[in-house]
Amino acid sequence: MYQPPTYGGSHQHHGSIHSTHSMRSNRPSGYGYQPAPPPGVDPTLWAYFSGVDTDHSGSINATELQNALVNGNWTKFDLDTVKMLMSIFDVDRSGTINYNEFAGLWKYIQDWQGVFRHFDRDQSGTIEGHELSEALRSFGYNLSPHLLRLVEQKYASAPVSGYGPPPGITFDRFVRACVVVKNLTEAFQRADVNRSGYVQFSYEQFMSIVLSAP
Amino acid sequence: MYQPPTYGGSHQHHGSIHSTHSMRSNRPSGYGYQPAPPPGVDPTLWAYFSGVDTDHSGSINATELQNALVNGNWTKFDLDTVKMLMSIFDVDRSGTINYNEFAGLWKYIQDWQGVFRHFDRDQSGTIEGHELSEALRSFGYNLSPHLLRLVEQKYASAPVSGYGPPPGITFDRFVRACVVVKNLTEAFQRADVNRSGYVQFSYEQFMSIVLSAP
Ligand SMILES: [Ca+2]
Ligand SMILES: [Ca+2]
Ligand SMILES: [Ca+2]
Ligand SMILES: [Ca+2]
Repeated sequence: MYQPPTYGGSHQHHGSIHSTHSMRSNRPSGYGYQPAPPPGVDPTLWAYFSGVDTDHSGSINATELQNALVNGNWTKFDLDTVKMLMSIFDVDRSGTINYNEFAGLWKYIQDWQGVFRHFDRDQSGTIEGHELSEALRSFGYNLSPHLLRLVEQKYASAPVSGYGPPPGITFDRFVRACVVVKNLTEAFQRADVNRSGYVQFSYEQFMSIVLSAP
Repeated sequence: MYQPPTYGGSHQHHGSIHSTHSMRSNRPSGYGYQPAPPPGVDPTLWAYFSGVDTDHSGSINATELQNALVNGNWTKFDLDTVKMLMSIFDVDRSGTINYNEFAGLWKYIQDWQGVFRHFDRDQSGTIEGHELSEALRSFGYNLSPHLLRLVEQKYASAPVSGYGPPPGITFDRFVRACVVVKNLTEAFQRADVNRSGYVQFSYEQFMSIVLSAP
């Protein structure tokens, strides 16, 4: 079973950082002015952080993050995915991403890229229906064909017509889709205390679960 | 009570069409080549339709629609809102919007603009927390303060920090938020057959409702 990436504290990160389509660092090579990394800091990761922090404020705001995050087809990440990443990695709720928070965010995106490349079997740059179903099944989510079709349509990267399969899912929306399925499934399982396969919800509980998903 | 716009067939539309911030018609004045309106067609609406149909194919595809739809601050509509509009108004599931479908779409957006302007009390161009709560209450949705905060955060037009209120909600996301609250509430009420205030859901039912909302 292939595990979806998790986040376990902002100090874990990969030993080596490779150039990536998902994060576009403006000056990764240290060209021009670049603040020196503080002692003990991974110089490569620091270079990426400094490249994304285009106004050199020492932390990354939402606009800088959205400008740095691109899909394989060079479209920007959608706002809801950027908001999801900020809500996970802006640990101190400052509204910006500092270097330590960035380390966690960077690892998370690298990990998801590995997952995305693994399941994009035809290397089309997007996740199509059967690729999506394999990914979710490998994460342990056995969705019915009906639910798989709903996920495929909801996260498709363009409107769905009545003819042919929905358009594929770009990286940003794939990550969001997987996190949403995970959050909703876990919320259902928490509510299904006696494991009957059924849950009872008040309107407040129901809406609260749905509106809390990214 | 103020009613949220509904859609009741693609042939209803306003008698007069005003220039609008939400739909940017490239050539509304008939400058340059413009196909003549078919007999019986509203010439003003036809001019808007032709302006949005930039490749003159006779119907509007998703890209043309997304390029035409702008918020008050001139940002493009987000993809999920464009997909929602296509799923409502592409009645024949052709993947494109023909003139008759456009008439319904146009009326719907005009109506929502009226709602938006009505509830944007401070004319900031975005809907803030108290404006949102007034709008939803006037539609008959009495959300708890907790749920209102979740809606406010989920549809905020930028990430939310721990300090200060969330950023306001732009037009595209406001329409989507209201439709989501409506769809979820109606799905809950349909499931609550004996009006006990509680529903029982299987995993399949629960996921199906949530993934069907825009
Ligand atoms: Ca922070
Ligand atoms: Ca693929
Ligand atoms: Ca159509
Ligand atoms: Ca306002």
